[in-house]
Amino acid sequence: MTHYDSELSQLKESLLTMASHAETAVTRAMRALVERDDALARTVDADDNLLDHFEIQIDDCAIHLLAKAPLATDLRLITVAMKISQNLERVGDEAVTIARRAIELNAEPQLKPYVDLPRMAAKSLEMLRDALSAFVQREPERARAVVPRDSEVDDLNRQLHRELASFMVERPANITRCLKLMVISKSLERIADHATNIAEEVVYLYEAKDIRHAEQKHNEAENPGG
Amino acid sequence: MTHYDSELSQLKESLLTMASHAETAVTRAMRALVERDDALARTVDADDNLLDHFEIQIDDCAIHLLAKAPLATDLRLITVAMKISQNLERVGDEAVTIARRAIELNAEPQLKPYVDLPRMAAKSLEMLRDALSAFVQREPERARAVVPRDSEVDDLNRQLHRELASFMVERPANITRCLKLMVISKSLERIADHATNIAEEVVYLYEAKDIRHAEQKHNEAENPGG
Repeated sequence: MTHYDSELSQLKESLLTMASHAETAVTRAMRALVERDDALARTVDADDNLLDHFEIQIDDCAIHLLAKAPLATDLRLITVAMKISQNLERVGDEAVTIARRAIELNAEPQLKPYVDLPRMAAKSLEMLRDALSAFVQREPERARAVVPRDSEVDDLNRQLHRELASFMVERPANITRCLKLMVISKSLERIADHATNIAEEVVYLYEAKDIRHAEQKHNEAENPGG
Repeated sequence: MTHYDSELSQLKESLLTMASHAETAVTRAMRALVERDDALARTVDADDNLLDHFEIQIDDCAIHLLAKAPLATDLRLITVAMKISQNLERVGDEAVTIARRAIELNAEPQLKPYVDLPRMAAKSLEMLRDALSAFVQREPERARAVVPRDSEVDDLNRQLHRELASFMVERPANITRCLKLMVISKSLERIADHATNIAEEVVYLYEAKDIRHAEQKHNEAENPGG
């Protein structure tokens, strides 16, 4: 392994570490909601600057590597790494949104047991993990398999949006809480979108075929949740 | 001007063209809403693949330029161009969301005259234009001035979210329409976020000082609209 290759490996390592922080943030935000734990929700907010710093550090490292990339294929790998880090940073932002809504919801009686939201979270995080492994292990097939799963999360969001909307109509007293749950559902759906973006970049990187904007996007925009 | 510089200028030109398409998409989506014009809304959807192609084309051009960048500073400029194009592509996605909600809203009686939403749209698009000019004209100060304006749009979104929420409580029959208007408001707020992201990248590019994640982000997450 050349010195340059070992620097590239370090870039991948940093991304994996960043991804695990992003996952922790989402997991904690969801636990804060389900277990009604405000203290845990506040750690998500406090830890968010960690992800911000990762993004900046990965950018700097990427620029440094671009300056001396020996192969044209390295250039694309490095720019994909930058895009992945931007997506992970936004996953962190969604975790903060979830955590803040959780604190507000915890101050009121619980509307109903949370079943669908944890399922959406589990699916989205699994997509994120698979997309990242596909990047690091050079497995375009694995990345390709992530893309269609986005519509499962879209469907769950759409369904929950509908349920919450009729819940509002039946009992206007529930409106504020339903709106907050809709925001959380939409945040989880966006996490799946970020995982899908990463997966599409990985497919493109290793197969040099652009699948971005082919199938997933229109489902996304059809979503009544926005 | 060297051949390389003229290729860089072309990259900037492409970004400006892409930006004007993104602006047109948002403007049309808003006109479709205000003038209740379904046909216009459908053109936004149909034209969205134009922005997708721009993103792919700008990526390819950027990779090509990275491979032969004579100066380290060019590297950062090129990676910023790629990030800008990604943000513009997402502005287009928000325009599609607005256009689709407009079609649904046009099928029902209008809830109230649209005043705040066009104001938000005007502000967000102005931010986008300023951020882009700052990039092309190398004006970090102008880019820096864009960042605080994001909180004006956040405030408008928050205020509208509150108004629509009380509107729902008063008249549950309005709930579905109010939810769609909330989605549009949130989309406009996200367009301002994209403009802010671009502006922050431009400041960083020309002043080599990272203002991303400093001020704007936490306002954004405090937003009750998500």
